[in-house]
Amino acid sequence: METKTQRNEQLEKIRELVKDIRIAMMTTIDDQGNLVSRPMATMQMDENGTFWFFTKKSAPKVDQIDKHEHRVNLAFAHPDEASYVSVSGSADEVYDRAKIDELWSPAAKPWFPDGKDDPELTLLKVHTELAEYWDSTSSRMVRFLEM
Amino acid sequence: METKTQRNEQLEKIRELVKDIRIAMMTTIDDQGNLVSRPMATMQMDENGTFWFFTKKSAPKVDQIDKHEHRVNLAFAHPDEASYVSVSGSADEVYDRAKIDELWSPAAKPWFPDGKDDPELTLLKVHTELAEYWDSTSSRMVRFLEM
Ligand SMILES: Cc1cc2nc3c(=O)[nH]c(=O)nc-3n(C[C@H](O)[C@H](O)[C@H](O)COP(=O)(O)O)c2cc1C
Repeated sequence: METKTQRNEQLEKIRELVKDIRIAMMTTIDDQGNLVSRPMATMQMDENGTFWFFTKKSAPKVDQIDKHEHRVNLAFAHPDEASYVSVSGSADEVYDRAKIDELWSPAAKPWFPDGKDDPELTLLKVHTELAEYWDSTSSRMVRFLEM
Repeated sequence: METKTQRNEQLEKIRELVKDIRIAMMTTIDDQGNLVSRPMATMQMDENGTFWFFTKKSAPKVDQIDKHEHRVNLAFAHPDEASYVSVSGSADEVYDRAKIDELWSPAAKPWFPDGKDDPELTLLKVHTELAEYWDSTSSRMVRFLEM
């Protein structure tokens, strides 16, 4: 995925680990209280440590996010490199045409065959509030908080 | 991971997809309501569609599970094969010496250097309540409920 230079060392560490992991598993809470996850193509980690995705306006996950304090988890895993990152974030659906133009790529076509003008197309941004990554040296998850 | 023959076609499908994915990202809810995930080595999918893991008795996740109706998500991803599975389950810590003996393998050594007799060693079993998998043919997550 595309990643930008981060404003602190901890987010830089996360960037380093996730930059080669395009697909995140995004977990939300459904109406019955189940924790459910699905694969999502990460389009960008911007300069504020925020992750950007394309979604459909009517997707169940957008509704689930609204009903559960906007909480999501993004799990990035790359077993061959022993890279494992957990991002606990606050998710918001935003329709921003300029940002859609910036992020649009043919890689998004499978989900949006009608392209950038699909009326269902919108953005989901996940603001990083807490991140943890697997540190192979100490064999533990290293945690840090982000505001 | 080790997998057993399942009692219905839907669990067989899940077995087929996860059998080559040893590491699951397990998501729980922490004290602040954050959704947090960490990599876990899956030791077995038993004949009831239950997933077995080793854990430490004092691990924060054990506490988080107790406090949040035992809800967890297991995300299994194998991008090269386009295999993505979400298991919404109910997790329980159980100390069962015979099961520990059955599941123990040198692969667990990095987390439990003292071996099977580590007083902190215990089991976490996740009963599958709801599962979803990516179906490439229909390009959507296929969902099924399990009791
Ligand atoms: C590799 C892969 C990448 C995906 N990327 C996206 C994506 O970027 N945006 C999206 O809305 N759905 C994506 N999907 C589909 C989602 O996994 C999911 O089926 C869809 O978003 C509906 O989710 P929901 O019903 O939980 O809201 C992707 C699926 C796969 C297999």
